[in-house]
Formats: sequence, structure tokens, C-alpha cells
Amino acid sequence: MARIDGARLLADLRELSRFGAFMTGVDRVALSATDIEARRWLVGKLTAAGLDASMDRVGNVVGRAPSVGKAILIGSHTDTVPKGGWLDGALGVGYALEVARSAMEASEPTGIGIDVVSFEDEEGTWLPFLGSRSYFADLDQSEIAAARSKDGATLAEALASIAGEPPPHRFDPARQVAYLEAHIEQGPRMEAAGRRIGVVPALVGIRRFRVRSHGAANHAGTAPMAMRRDAGAVMIALGASLQTDFRLHSGPDTVWNVGNMIFRPGAANVVPGEAEMLFEFRDIDGSAMDRLEEHFTALVEAARRGTVGAASGEPLSEPVKIDVETIVRIPPTRLAADLGDAIAKAAAARGEEPAWLPSGAGHDAMVAARFMPAAMMFVPSIGGISHDVRENTSDADIVFGCEVLADAVEQLRRHMPQ
Amino acid sequence: MARIDGARLLADLRELSRFGAFMTGVDRVALSATDIEARRWLVGKLTAAGLDASMDRVGNVVGRAPSVGKAILIGSHTDTVPKGGWLDGALGVGYALEVARSAMEASEPTGIGIDVVSFEDEEGTWLPFLGSRSYFADLDQSEIAAARSKDGATLAEALASIAGEPPPHRFDPARQVAYLEAHIEQGPRMEAAGRRIGVVPALVGIRRFRVRSHGAANHAGTAPMAMRRDAGAVMIALGASLQTDFRLHSGPDTVWNVGNMIFRPGAANVVPGEAEMLFEFRDIDGSAMDRLEEHFTALVEAARRGTVGAASGEPLSEPVKIDVETIVRIPPTRLAADLGDAIAKAAAARGEEPAWLPSGAGHDAMVAARFMPAAMMFVPSIGGISHDVRENTSDADIVFGCEVLADAVEQLRRHMPQ
Repeated sequence: MARIDGARLLADLRELSRFGAFMTGVDRVALSATDIEARRWLVGKLTAAGLDASMDRVGNVVGRAPSVGKAILIGSHTDTVPKGGWLDGALGVGYALEVARSAMEASEPTGIGIDVVSFEDEEGTWLPFLGSRSYFADLDQSEIAAARSKDGATLAEALASIAGEPPPHRFDPARQVAYLEAHIEQGPRMEAAGRRIGVVPALVGIRRFRVRSHGAANHAGTAPMAMRRDAGAVMIALGASLQTDFRLHSGPDTVWNVGNMIFRPGAANVVPGEAEMLFEFRDIDGSAMDRLEEHFTALVEAARRGTVGAASGEPLSEPVKIDVETIVRIPPTRLAADLGDAIAKAAAARGEEPAWLPSGAGHDAMVAARFMPAAMMFVPSIGGISHDVRENTSDADIVFGCEVLADAVEQLRRHMPQ
Repeated sequence: MARIDGARLLADLRELSRFGAFMTGVDRVALSATDIEARRWLVGKLTAAGLDASMDRVGNVVGRAPSVGKAILIGSHTDTVPKGGWLDGALGVGYALEVARSAMEASEPTGIGIDVVSFEDEEGTWLPFLGSRSYFADLDQSEIAAARSKDGATLAEALASIAGEPPPHRFDPARQVAYLEAHIEQGPRMEAAGRRIGVVPALVGIRRFRVRSHGAANHAGTAPMAMRRDAGAVMIALGASLQTDFRLHSGPDTVWNVGNMIFRPGAANVVPGEAEMLFEFRDIDGSAMDRLEEHFTALVEAARRGTVGAASGEPLSEPVKIDVETIVRIPPTRLAADLGDAIAKAAAARGEEPAWLPSGAGHDAMVAARFMPAAMMFVPSIGGISHDVRENTSDADIVFGCEVLADAVEQLRRHMPQ
């Protein structure tokens, strides 16, 4: 088994959390001054550990193991959402630093080294997966030129402060043979199941829709029920039918959400003339997603006819115009089974049965997996909380996760073709 | 039959619509400069017709027939909603002016005269029914002191510009024996039924509720369906069940509305932690309203248990806290049957079968009916549109309505005890 220094890992994570510290969490959005400071701190730590490390001009930090022909790339991201937690992203980078540093200290004779990465802007303050997409040369200059934050500031301006850094780090397929990313679960499943290690077979695909209905605003006292074109009532019926239908037809890993509902004009005494709903669903099975989308489309059609939510096929309402806009359509991402198995075996060897659970959120591994074998490992989130200052994982679980990752990496370095 | 001057009526209504003219409608909110100008114009018209007319210091205009011991009070209001129509309120005041003026011109020997009123702020820019509540001494000074517009301006300041006018006009129960108010229907029922005169047996009561659910915001990808406390899904299920339940249990005159739905934080990828709904229903039958409220309360209870919208009694969701706040509770108002009959007979005598239809909106007659016998008459709204610059009624229907009202008033003046 590999040996890591748990106290040092925790100390590094705590030190990292001071950059942008906010209440009990961290506010360190991509390309902010604190984000860049934290990345410079990471370059220092990697350099001190003996890696060739630098931050490039998009903010990616890469530390390369010296004197090896091949390497396993380990990492995640050190940017956060606004008012976020201290572990989302940071944990995976802290693990990468500790695993690489411990391996350098152990000086085991293997031709496969450990490279470390912290990708920029995984959270999408400017452009989701900016760093990993840059690293895998999956990004047009035109996308960078067009990207803006929610406040309207341009990514191009935000990048100006690091324009003097070296050209972008790029993935080297001849060298980097696998990508491993550890992350907090950001959900309650492992805690509920009493599992300390999660292995991720796949990241879910996402289909997200904006549904708009256009009826006629009317006085809610004087317009008789039968003569209304109530855009809100149709949207409520559609939302309720979606919930019922998805409950019946979803798979074990499907999740869905009506995240927003807007009525206009939104007054108690006015029949809504327009309504809007945000609906999304996620699954790791693309063909299951196709079937669910057929259900969604059929219910929208029923809503157009006014029959959604009707016990009989009789229309409940006058026809209301309904538009559907597809906002997001991301396919599911399968991860490398052999790499996942290595993590699972490492957990079992330390007496912990791993949980196999898909990732419901996106991660840099989703980008990496399109270009190289990639795997992800989860540790539990206390209370399932993330993207919040209360985000946390017990020290014991943090250290144990790093030990399992280190063991898995050790086995891979020994047994992968060199 | 009474004789009125239809061309003069239409000319007066068009002249009145120039005060605050906005596109094809009128923007003449209570106590605005144009509202006060219009009221001074009305005082001039009433005075020219031979009435003793003045505007008081809350903006009410009253014109009293000279030399009579008793009078029928006819009127409505001349304030409008912002960007409103030219007939809402104005029609009833125009009718009152024309009916009183024609009667004065006819000089028929009767001891019952015709008084005319334009109440201030029926639309509630500052305080709904400010004028009629002042007239019937149903208003505390403390309410006036506390009232503010949506913009936060105080009613007290708005009244300052007319503080030099005479003290408030008051209802004189020894003199005024009946209140008659003509109004546009503000709905599509008369047009759909091909009726030119509507007689209002009652004004609906209103019960209006704000329902709030408090769950837990969560990542819509990582939180499994079974472990969510989705405040939005509960609200959608409650809204859908209310629609279905009210469709089953409502009476012929019940109307209801889910006027607004708010989800927080309202993002596609976040399970709503809080949701809010505005729900109201209206009916002219108080005990039917009690029964409907029991249905409403039972569904809210089911929503609290997580069983609303469930085919079985099994909870669909983790418990979510739900609050209900009663915002409005106005009882139904019955109008005087003998006065309504007089209008219906006058319509029938001119060859038009009247429609009997409750008023789904509030009117000054609702206040008046608590203090004296009151009746309302409707004329059709083209397309059912009101509170909009497109609000309109055909010239022929406007004139015909005034003829019917004049006939009814003539009969009442002849046959009421003097």
C-alpha cells in the first residue's frame, strides 16, 4: 500500500481554503485575484515537491513529474462558485499534490510518473470547463472572445491579468495515459449508505428545456372559467404531469427537476397570460433519455391540445400556444472501467466496499474522458451539501480517500504498460 | 319612456376621455392632475345641468338635484387604472349626468330627484373605494394616514392639492333612497350570449390566499429523487389538484385563479427550496365559498403530508413545510332585487331580454349596498377586454344602456314612496 501524509494533506487543504475564505467556506471564483493567488501557491507547492510546475495564460496549473516518459494525470480544479465550499475541486487537487509528492518521496522505480493539474473555471463563472477544454484543445478562440460572466464582464478582460504567463498547457497523448479525479460527492447517497469511497462509472447526460405558454391575460373575476386561455393553469398541469410521468417511467439513476416557474403578469386577480417553466432531466443511459424525452414531448403536445391533466381526452381549456426551447443537451459520459476497478479494488483492500454511483453533476473528467481513459472517485459530503459554505467532509474521510487514491495510482503505475 | 340625448352622452364621454388620453385609452389614476381636472370638468357639466355640484376634499364629486326631498343617487367613478380604458367608471358617470340632465330638462313633476356621484379612487391606486367609503363614513382617518401607492407615495400627500375643497360629501339616508351604478361588463359573457343589458343580482365575494412552501434547495443532479424536499414540486402538485378539485366542486358562478407562482432560487439545476403561489376564488354564494375553502384547506393538508397528487395515499415526497396566509376575505354582496327588476323590466320594454349575471369584479355599489338599496347594470365589453387601452363598447350599446337606465329611473321616481 502507498503511504501518504494525511496531516500534511489536511494542512495543505486548510491553507488553500484561506485564499478567498468566506465564513466557513470559500469565495474564489475563476480568474479573481484570490483564484490566481491560490494557483500561484499551488505552483509553489508542486515545485517544492519536485515537479516542473507552472500556471499558463488561461489559469491552468500543471505540474509534471521529471524524468519520466509516461504519467498518470491527477487533478481537479481550485476555482469555486461564489460563496462556495472549501472542498469542491480543492479536494481533488489536494489529493493530486499529496499523491504525487508522496510518490516522489518514496522514489519507487517506475517509468510512469504522476502529473498534477488544477483546471481553470470548472464552475463556469466565465465559460464552463474553460481550463479542461483548453487543455484538450477543445476550445475555439471565438468562444473565449464571446464569453462573459453573469455581470457582463468579458472573459478576455479577465484573462488580461495573466496574459504574460506561458502559452497554454496541452494534453500530451504520448505521455499522459490516464486521468484520475477525486471529488466530494455533492450529494447525500454515500452518507446515507454508509460508504466512504464512491467509484463513478459514468457522468450523467443532461437535457434541459425552457417551456413557454402564451394564453391571454384576463380579469380573474369577470372572465368565466370556460372562456379563459390560462397560460399558468396549462403550465401547472404540464408540470404536474411531468412529475407523475417521470416518476412512472424513469430509471433508477434518472433525476429530473422543475427548477423554475414564472407567471406573467403574476397578480392574484389576473389570469396569467404567459408562463414559463425550466425543466431538465439527467441519466447515464442515452437511450433511456431518448425515451423520457418522448414522454416529455407527448405531454407538451397534450398541453397544446389542452388535454394535459384531463381524466378524459376532453380539452380542459381553450388552446394555448406552447414553445419548447432546448437549452442544454449533453450526452452521458462513460468512464474507463479498468481505472474504476483499480479504485474499487484499492478501497476493498483497505476494508471498504465502494459505492458505484453515477455523477449527477458535470466535472472536468467529462471533458478528459473524450480524449483519454478517465476515472472519478468520490468521498462523502456531510449532509449532501455543496456549493454552500457548509460543505464539508470529515477529516478521516478526506485522509482515507487520499489513501485509496494513492493505492490505486500505485497499482496502476506498476501494472500499466510503460 | 324617458328621453335622453345619445349624441350628447357620447360627446361627453369622448370629452371626458381626453383627460389623461393615452393611446386609444385613458391613464387617469386617482388624484393625479388629470383626474382632478376631469372632476372639475364634471362639476361644470353638472352645474350647467342645474345641479348643485362640487368636489370635496377627497375628490368625490356630487351633484344634487335642487328643490327635492328625496333622490336616487346614480354614478360610478372617473379615476382609471394606469393605461386603462375610456369607459371603466366613466360610462356610469356619463349615464348619471345624462339621465339627471334629461330629467331636469323634462321638468316632470316628481318629488324624487336625481343626484349624481363620481367616487374617488375606486381602482385603489391609493386605497380601494376611498371615495365611496368616505361617502358612507366607512373610513378611518388612520386608514387614510397609512395608505400608500405601489410607488410608496402617501395618500395624505396626494390629497394635499385638494385640501382647500369643501369637507367630505356624506350619504344622507333621509334623502337618497337608492343607488344605481351602470358599468361595462369587463368580461365576455354578454357579448358571447348576445345580450345588450346585464342586471347584476350580486357582487362576488373574494377569498385570496398566499401559499408558501419551505423545502430544501439542492443540486438537481446529485440529490436523488427520494431524498429531496422539493418546495416547487409540492406547489405544482397543489396547484394542479386545486384546478382539478375546483373544476369538480365549483358552482356555476365560481371563478378561481392561480395568479402567480414563484420558485426560489429558480435555477434549472437547483431543486427549489422555496415556492409561493397566489390563489383566489370568487362566488356570490357564501356557503358555497365555505365548502370550497374546506376543499382548499384539505388539499393544503395533503400537500403538507406529501400526498397531494398521489394516486395512492403514499407520500410522494419528504415533508415540506407549508404556510397559508389569507390576503383577502370579502363576503358576497347581494343587491336590491326590486331595483334590479326595474332595470330588467326597462330592458324588456325596449325589446331586449336582459342577462342576469353576477359581477366578478368589485364596484362602488359593493360599498353602497351595505348602507342603502343598490343595483348595478352592465353593458357589453367588446372582446370582454377591460383595464386595457383596447377596452370598448359600441356606440349603439352605450346609448341603449343609458336609455334603459333612464327608463328604469323614471319608473322608480314615479313609483317609489315619496
